[in-house]
Amino acid sequence: MATAAEVDEQELPPRRSSSSPEVMEQQRGNLREPLLEHSPIDLRRQAANTTSQVAIVGSNLCPIESLDYELIENDVLNQDWRSRGRAAILQYVFLKWTFCLFIGILAGAVGFFNNLAVENIAGRKFVTVSKLMLANKYWTAFWVFAGSNLALLTFATAIPAFVSTAAGGSGIPEVKAYLNGVDAPDVFSLRTLVVKIVGTIAAVSSSLHVGKADPMVHIGACIGAMVGQGGSRKYRMTCSWLRYFKNDRDRRDLVTCGAAAGVAAALRAPVGGVLFALESLSSWWRSALIWRAFFTTAVVAVTLRALTDICGRGNCGLYGKGGLITYDVIADTVAYRLADLPPVILLGVIGGVLGSLYNVLMVKVLHACSLVNERGGARRLLLAAAVSICISCCLFGLPWLAPCRPCSSKECSTVAHPGGFNNFQCPPDHYNDLASLFFNTNDDTIRKLYGRGTNDDFQKSSIMVAFAASYVLGILSYGVVAAPFGLFVPIMLTGASYGRLVGMAMGSDTNLDHGLFAVLGSASFLGGTMRMTVSVCVIMLELTNDLLLLPLVMLVLLISKTVADAFNPNIYDLILRLKGLPYLEDHAEPYMRQLTVSDVVAGPLRTFNGVEKVGNVVHILKTTGHHAFPVIDEPPFSSSPVLYGLVLRAHLLSLLKKKKRFLPTRSVAGLGAAGQFGADELGKRGSGKHERVEDVEVSAEEMEMFVDLHPFTNSSPYTVVETMSLAKALILFREMGLRHLLIVPKSSSRAPVVGMLTRHDFMAERILGLHPFLRKSRWRRLRFQRSTLRRLCRACLMWASS
Amino acid sequence: MATAAEVDEQELPPRRSSSSPEVMEQQRGNLREPLLEHSPIDLRRQAANTTSQVAIVGSNLCPIESLDYELIENDVLNQDWRSRGRAAILQYVFLKWTFCLFIGILAGAVGFFNNLAVENIAGRKFVTVSKLMLANKYWTAFWVFAGSNLALLTFATAIPAFVSTAAGGSGIPEVKAYLNGVDAPDVFSLRTLVVKIVGTIAAVSSSLHVGKADPMVHIGACIGAMVGQGGSRKYRMTCSWLRYFKNDRDRRDLVTCGAAAGVAAALRAPVGGVLFALESLSSWWRSALIWRAFFTTAVVAVTLRALTDICGRGNCGLYGKGGLITYDVIADTVAYRLADLPPVILLGVIGGVLGSLYNVLMVKVLHACSLVNERGGARRLLLAAAVSICISCCLFGLPWLAPCRPCSSKECSTVAHPGGFNNFQCPPDHYNDLASLFFNTNDDTIRKLYGRGTNDDFQKSSIMVAFAASYVLGILSYGVVAAPFGLFVPIMLTGASYGRLVGMAMGSDTNLDHGLFAVLGSASFLGGTMRMTVSVCVIMLELTNDLLLLPLVMLVLLISKTVADAFNPNIYDLILRLKGLPYLEDHAEPYMRQLTVSDVVAGPLRTFNGVEKVGNVVHILKTTGHHAFPVIDEPPFSSSPVLYGLVLRAHLLSLLKKKKRFLPTRSVAGLGAAGQFGADELGKRGSGKHERVEDVEVSAEEMEMFVDLHPFTNSSPYTVVETMSLAKALILFREMGLRHLLIVPKSSSRAPVVGMLTRHDFMAERILGLHPFLRKSRWRRLRFQRSTLRRLCRACLMWASS
Repeated sequence: MATAAEVDEQELPPRRSSSSPEVMEQQRGNLREPLLEHSPIDLRRQAANTTSQVAIVGSNLCPIESLDYELIENDVLNQDWRSRGRAAILQYVFLKWTFCLFIGILAGAVGFFNNLAVENIAGRKFVTVSKLMLANKYWTAFWVFAGSNLALLTFATAIPAFVSTAAGGSGIPEVKAYLNGVDAPDVFSLRTLVVKIVGTIAAVSSSLHVGKADPMVHIGACIGAMVGQGGSRKYRMTCSWLRYFKNDRDRRDLVTCGAAAGVAAALRAPVGGVLFALESLSSWWRSALIWRAFFTTAVVAVTLRALTDICGRGNCGLYGKGGLITYDVIADTVAYRLADLPPVILLGVIGGVLGSLYNVLMVKVLHACSLVNERGGARRLLLAAAVSICISCCLFGLPWLAPCRPCSSKECSTVAHPGGFNNFQCPPDHYNDLASLFFNTNDDTIRKLYGRGTNDDFQKSSIMVAFAASYVLGILSYGVVAAPFGLFVPIMLTGASYGRLVGMAMGSDTNLDHGLFAVLGSASFLGGTMRMTVSVCVIMLELTNDLLLLPLVMLVLLISKTVADAFNPNIYDLILRLKGLPYLEDHAEPYMRQLTVSDVVAGPLRTFNGVEKVGNVVHILKTTGHHAFPVIDEPPFSSSPVLYGLVLRAHLLSLLKKKKRFLPTRSVAGLGAAGQFGADELGKRGSGKHERVEDVEVSAEEMEMFVDLHPFTNSSPYTVVETMSLAKALILFREMGLRHLLIVPKSSSRAPVVGMLTRHDFMAERILGLHPFLRKSRWRRLRFQRSTLRRLCRACLMWASS
Repeated sequence: MATAAEVDEQELPPRRSSSSPEVMEQQRGNLREPLLEHSPIDLRRQAANTTSQVAIVGSNLCPIESLDYELIENDVLNQDWRSRGRAAILQYVFLKWTFCLFIGILAGAVGFFNNLAVENIAGRKFVTVSKLMLANKYWTAFWVFAGSNLALLTFATAIPAFVSTAAGGSGIPEVKAYLNGVDAPDVFSLRTLVVKIVGTIAAVSSSLHVGKADPMVHIGACIGAMVGQGGSRKYRMTCSWLRYFKNDRDRRDLVTCGAAAGVAAALRAPVGGVLFALESLSSWWRSALIWRAFFTTAVVAVTLRALTDICGRGNCGLYGKGGLITYDVIADTVAYRLADLPPVILLGVIGGVLGSLYNVLMVKVLHACSLVNERGGARRLLLAAAVSICISCCLFGLPWLAPCRPCSSKECSTVAHPGGFNNFQCPPDHYNDLASLFFNTNDDTIRKLYGRGTNDDFQKSSIMVAFAASYVLGILSYGVVAAPFGLFVPIMLTGASYGRLVGMAMGSDTNLDHGLFAVLGSASFLGGTMRMTVSVCVIMLELTNDLLLLPLVMLVLLISKTVADAFNPNIYDLILRLKGLPYLEDHAEPYMRQLTVSDVVAGPLRTFNGVEKVGNVVHILKTTGHHAFPVIDEPPFSSSPVLYGLVLRAHLLSLLKKKKRFLPTRSVAGLGAAGQFGADELGKRGSGKHERVEDVEVSAEEMEMFVDLHPFTNSSPYTVVETMSLAKALILFREMGLRHLLIVPKSSSRAPVVGMLTRHDFMAERILGLHPFLRKSRWRRLRFQRSTLRRLCRACLMWASS
């Protein structure tokens, strides 16, 4: 893993010596009345771009890169395009659909396997503990319970720590960042995939308060990215057809489909999966992609059904009916009157407040623990062990407070059929309601809470304890332990518990079922933390199989999202920021209207001549970490300096490796020269893989030769004039998925390019660092939000204690 | 209505005299090896842009305009932006949400009113006819039936023909075009709204084979556009807050929400509405808009529910339970085995073939009839009358062929409760199954076909006749009559009928219910004609309230869309093309990679000086129809010619009207000059409203004065270099929602701008007109598709007749 010192995505090159200080002076003079009088230009120009060039992946600092979604138009690739016939296009289309099919099948299979493993491992644990409890061996039961939890969690924490740090955590923030154009290394490798799968199974089985839905999104995306690598030279999987996929645009589509497939596989919600990918993961979308993602999730649904049918014959161990999350709670009619609306609205408000508070607390805990987790694997294991023991004690200790109740008509767990109501310390034919919530997998617990006609099955005090435990343990689990697991299911569970509480508090004032309140509670808490609307709505409907809930779910989501949005952003965005991933928002902040692009460009620019000395190229590549260089044609080749285009570091490295194109003198290569180069040699390698300049060997003799960069230069880069506002440039940058945006001067008498914008130049931290006086308005808003939240929480606590 | 001769969206201005032929010559010489050797450059330059500057709105030729989604950055608007404080932003946000609330309430109310009116008018007609039939007055019954149909349809055809031609037809293509950036006049006016509402009610009540869903989309969008006008000077509705909405970007958001609300109101499908807008209407989308649209459709759902509850008390005449489309067909379990898949797959294939054939036939009929319809209102009325009589004869005549069957357990219609099974010519306690399908509103018919446990209620022959009639009459109705109505519901009905046929043909080979086959048939035909996936899937689920159908509906949609896509585009796109609306696709055709932007730019360019003579401005505005002009700063004001920016015609007209800014000599106005102008004076007026240069009065003295264009010029227009490929420029143009895209030269020694791209330059007709040899590859594909379709249809016919 690289350290912060090796950062190579600086992309804001120091100005080349040839563009003299006079040019800069002239440029300053030419600037039409600067929008900002207060910003000292000189200060700005000197400021280095020190922010957001590294991200915390897993718990390590890693250099990050941007993805190239731009159509690179150089002679080599243009010739390749023109040579593609009908057959090539058909091959491409056929392959892309085949890849989607593969992704669907693989994601479905992995989703099923995860469930099967969790049900069997956790199930075996609960059965053993139940048997011991029945035999009154309480202490032995506790040691077995705590011991197995500890072992599972230690394993789940150890493998990401020592094998692939990128596999830790939810994975959704990384996928979201990738789809926004941020390529953190190792996020989509085979190693990460395997660690994620194994780690999730162990972590979820360890009674930690975590879920398996989020990691499935990462797993799906990982499958998509690996399928779309365009083959692998390492594993000798190369094929001429695959080279069409050697670009980030196609890979982005496949990753989107993979993420949708992951949601579909985790929650058995094919339509919900598409919408989740669309609403909260993807930054670019087009109608053709909806159709492709829909196909992928349909394949997932078919795969899941086929595999479930195989297990329906009872040869999958403890994997029963409840393996996948299927809370089919069809009611004949959901009759609700106007009088039922106030509690539903109340649920929405509670969800909003609790959700935003959850986000705040989660970020605080994550931040505090990242300091410990960064110090190496051993400390991470210790921390995880402490949490595991603490949680085991809670889960085993708290149910002793709950009284025993008779199993009248309801399904009590037996050793043969776990997942029902547990009897814990109670005599036979009795059950402990709190233990029934704790000594089951999350899926079984949620199914119990959602159950209709179960108003009298739970005591108010038990649900209250369950809610408090769920809220606190959820934050503790995700915040402290750095293992692969997710937030979606625990959030649903917490929401369901306080939903039931509200239902109980209403008593006979409402004729809605408590199970229905639990469903609405889940929706409100999801709305309050994740802030998704349509996708959560559809996912809840697909999970509960009850469309008549729709209006109430919509209402609850609207309210909880509105309330929570007043305080802070959604949980995944907060984690994104914490990890330092430079995510580009889709809207411009108001202060960006007050800045022009030239207000944020820092550092001098490094450019190449159209025909450049090899030694010069190697030197600049070695001494800078920039990923693109403007190519300028100067007087011998044109009448005045002209911006020819932009050449990528990756293409320069390919060129240097091949050597063929070196010329003895400074002259333009012949027209056919581009033909010596195959387009696949310029193809973009898979996520996280990059050539290094250190691997290129150039002899001293070759260093003195020249190379014609024209055929390898993107001759139509996107440019903006220096007077464009930052807000307008952001829209262009974000909508087009750019990596580099050249700034050209207004006047044609000056140097043909005055700077280059990259993703980092649009980050709030950087802009506010350059223009500190803009901070005022931003802080005022944040302060207002925080104080309101604090005041509200205080009021809630007072109300609860009274 | 303007005629084709008045077209003012030419936007490809003749080159200004000042940019001399030498510049052009030089430019040609400088062009790096042209990608296309065959295209004669001189021919191209001379070709005028004669295509797609008019659209057929209703049945008239109208000039069309593009919308400005670009952020215009001139001094006046920048100052306005900088002066906006926190309060202004809050006002804006508050207003936008309030507008969404209004749109939701209004769309819900109109949707309900439409249903109420149709149920009552059509219901009254059917009750009267039934009474007469019961009394054996068959001929009288026929005259009443045919007469009322004729009267209703004549009215429905007359009002759009004489009041607002834009209200004819489905309206979805126009909304789709608007959201793509095409502003056809009169599409979103109050007049159109009223005509659309009244016309739809009359047309749907007239037993024409048409639906009321599509017009609701137009109505919703219309409400959205009108709410977002930013007030109205005509009706004295002005307010300082409203001026924030005087731009096309905000209006686009509101129209999108309105369209989603329309779908939600028509089909009682709030989530489906959002997805419909997202998948098939909108060209740009962002996550915040999903959330806003979701809010709007939630308001629609609440409004509809409240209004339905009022009618539940029985005070809405014949409006019963079936008023809105609600085919609640909840089944406890939909058990399907592997053996049930072949018929489902077959349904998908049939849907694809029939759907694409439907599209072909529809376009042929529409094309043929548009020739008649263009000749004026009287001919349109005659055509409509002929169709109405023909349909009345069919509907009244065909049921006599069907035998009478006893009403055993099922609900037979009574005079008090229409909508059940009709007895037509049969004795009491008997029913005619064909008449039951014909003598009801579409909604009631579909509900019958979808009904579970009704396998024996219909004869095979009746369903066959119903299918044939539905298929043919659907095309006849929509294709021939130019009144406001839609396609969605008739397509559902046709699909349901052949779905049942397939179920019957399967006999005991399948254990799926025929009602289920009908639902799947509808999905397959919708997939085959409209090619939507996720949205149709969700809409079908919301309509039938049965989530367990999901996997089968997905499968059917996937197959039918795949099959149909092999033949032709979706029906709305075909109608769009027929109307000549210049719709920008979201992907570039392969031949666009072979052209550069300079290959398609035609005609010389007309530019202004930074400080221009008033007379010159007036002259150019009067003699050209261009909507934007590059502003060039020339030597007295700069050292060499420099592209300062782009000024819009609308802003020039505002400037001329105000006159204040005229200067006696050619000099730059003071810095504070921009302040004399309010930003609201530069605000974009509502859809279809434009200032005309003829309304501006300038005296001869003023003509000799000068005007400083700088403060009104967008100083940061988007530019591309002349060597950029057309495909890459299209991506920029489409993603950014541009109206004008300036082409700048590579070399700085030439004129600072060499051309301007507009929407029309990306239209296939125009490009292929300039480069006819590109036609080859396109035609080959089309020919292949057509011959395959023809061969398939022949095979189907042979199979059916054997």
